[in-house]
Amino acid sequence: MSSHAFDDAVALEPLGDGRFRGHTHPAYANMVGPFGGITAATLLRAVEQHPDVLGAPLSLTVNFAGPVADGEFEIEAVPVRTNRSTQHWSLTLTQGGAIATTATAVFGERRDTWSETETLAPDVAGPEQLEQQRMPDIIVWARNYEMRFADGIMTPGAGQASSSSTLWMRDAPPRPLDFASLAALCDVFYPRIFLRSGQMTPAGTVTLTIYFHADAQQLVAQGDAHLLATARGHRFNDGYFDQSATVWGHDGHLLASTHQLVYFKS
Amino acid sequence: MSSHAFDDAVALEPLGDGRFRGHTHPAYANMVGPFGGITAATLLRAVEQHPDVLGAPLSLTVNFAGPVADGEFEIEAVPVRTNRSTQHWSLTLTQGGAIATTATAVFGERRDTWSETETLAPDVAGPEQLEQQRMPDIIVWARNYEMRFADGIMTPGAGQASSSSTLWMRDAPPRPLDFASLAALCDVFYPRIFLRSGQMTPAGTVTLTIYFHADAQQLVAQGDAHLLATARGHRFNDGYFDQSATVWGHDGHLLASTHQLVYFKS
Repeated sequence: MSSHAFDDAVALEPLGDGRFRGHTHPAYANMVGPFGGITAATLLRAVEQHPDVLGAPLSLTVNFAGPVADGEFEIEAVPVRTNRSTQHWSLTLTQGGAIATTATAVFGERRDTWSETETLAPDVAGPEQLEQQRMPDIIVWARNYEMRFADGIMTPGAGQASSSSTLWMRDAPPRPLDFASLAALCDVFYPRIFLRSGQMTPAGTVTLTIYFHADAQQLVAQGDAHLLATARGHRFNDGYFDQSATVWGHDGHLLASTHQLVYFKS
Repeated sequence: MSSHAFDDAVALEPLGDGRFRGHTHPAYANMVGPFGGITAATLLRAVEQHPDVLGAPLSLTVNFAGPVADGEFEIEAVPVRTNRSTQHWSLTLTQGGAIATTATAVFGERRDTWSETETLAPDVAGPEQLEQQRMPDIIVWARNYEMRFADGIMTPGAGQASSSSTLWMRDAPPRPLDFASLAALCDVFYPRIFLRSGQMTPAGTVTLTIYFHADAQQLVAQGDAHLLATARGHRFNDGYFDQSATVWGHDGHLLASTHQLVYFKS
């Protein structure tokens, strides 16, 4: 049985002292360098594989400082502070000694508390009732994701009044959900400027933050079912915009909320 | 003429090599250590004062790794990568050699592009029509902020169904807006769990991210007028919740969007 391309893409070879060697994967190529979501997933995976890791991911911030070239890279993961129930990490991804990506992550242990979800999943048709959308072939990484839009499909040549999209999504072929694949799924919402302008203008994530609301058990419970997500932008101006998204499980649990600042040309 | 307490609180003494010495300020004390917003503002100020800084703030992520004790601290600001129009920073705040706070920031230059604000300011009564709220005296830092709520005031002893608050806010006494004071204002929204539970349960920000949508000129145009903000939480569970807020100028411009993950006990 061959492994899923996702597992190959985030695979890391431990080099000791919190350093890991990885390799870009052609299946997750973007127009320039790899899909940001796979870089985020790989950084998270470095912490997960670190011998000193405490608990599970609570948050991840990834700063896309420069392009990642096809080929090998090295990740260094440093546990800068370990408390009783939380652990703070600083990470760098380098190629030939130059920093391409920086990140910080918070891991920790969860305790049972009062719980409530205030941002509920929108009431939309199920994934089986919605058509699968294909991205243009030029966006190689998108072939690894099944996306079925309830609303907010980009229409080439026609700008839209809203940047909001709601879609069912999962890995293609399906793969059981884990923290790394959820991190990557938090970046599948193509730049909201595409929806507003109706054009694939040059755009790229500058910084991405993910808050994880689920524990490992809740992720396992998702299996390889579709997740539901809504994404939208807030303000577009002077070459940058921000977009936020929320990701629910097929069972309606809010699994992650994610935010990013995106560079664009117009 | 004496300076504003805010300016004293974020004042830094350059030590060379990107290092700065700062000092906690009693006026910005929180229940444990300083108000997180003043720490965020001070970290941003370190980059602003660095001789190699490029442009203005685009984003800031601050990770509250451990408590900051009253007294001196040192900030190190490292420009890890400088591109043509963006610059990526890594920052640490240490006391006695121990890391209390880490941060990453992106600074850059803005260019004129297609612009639109999709998340508009809510239509609420003006600040002059709303009563000024006083926080309990135990929250010392809150005395430096004027807050006039349009909705979502915490009612001690009575939990509420929504964690949303909309308020006018500014420094008290009024002070012309700049990036550092805007960063601090992005953290004045007390933990949303207070609203939901009706109790000031133990809670603290774990990680805070701010996206700046305005340039220096737009901030100067605000003068010391009230800003309008809406904050709300998404999911509360297992000891953590996230909250997001948007901050508009008195002229309706979206100045910042901000997100945080908060630890709580219940």
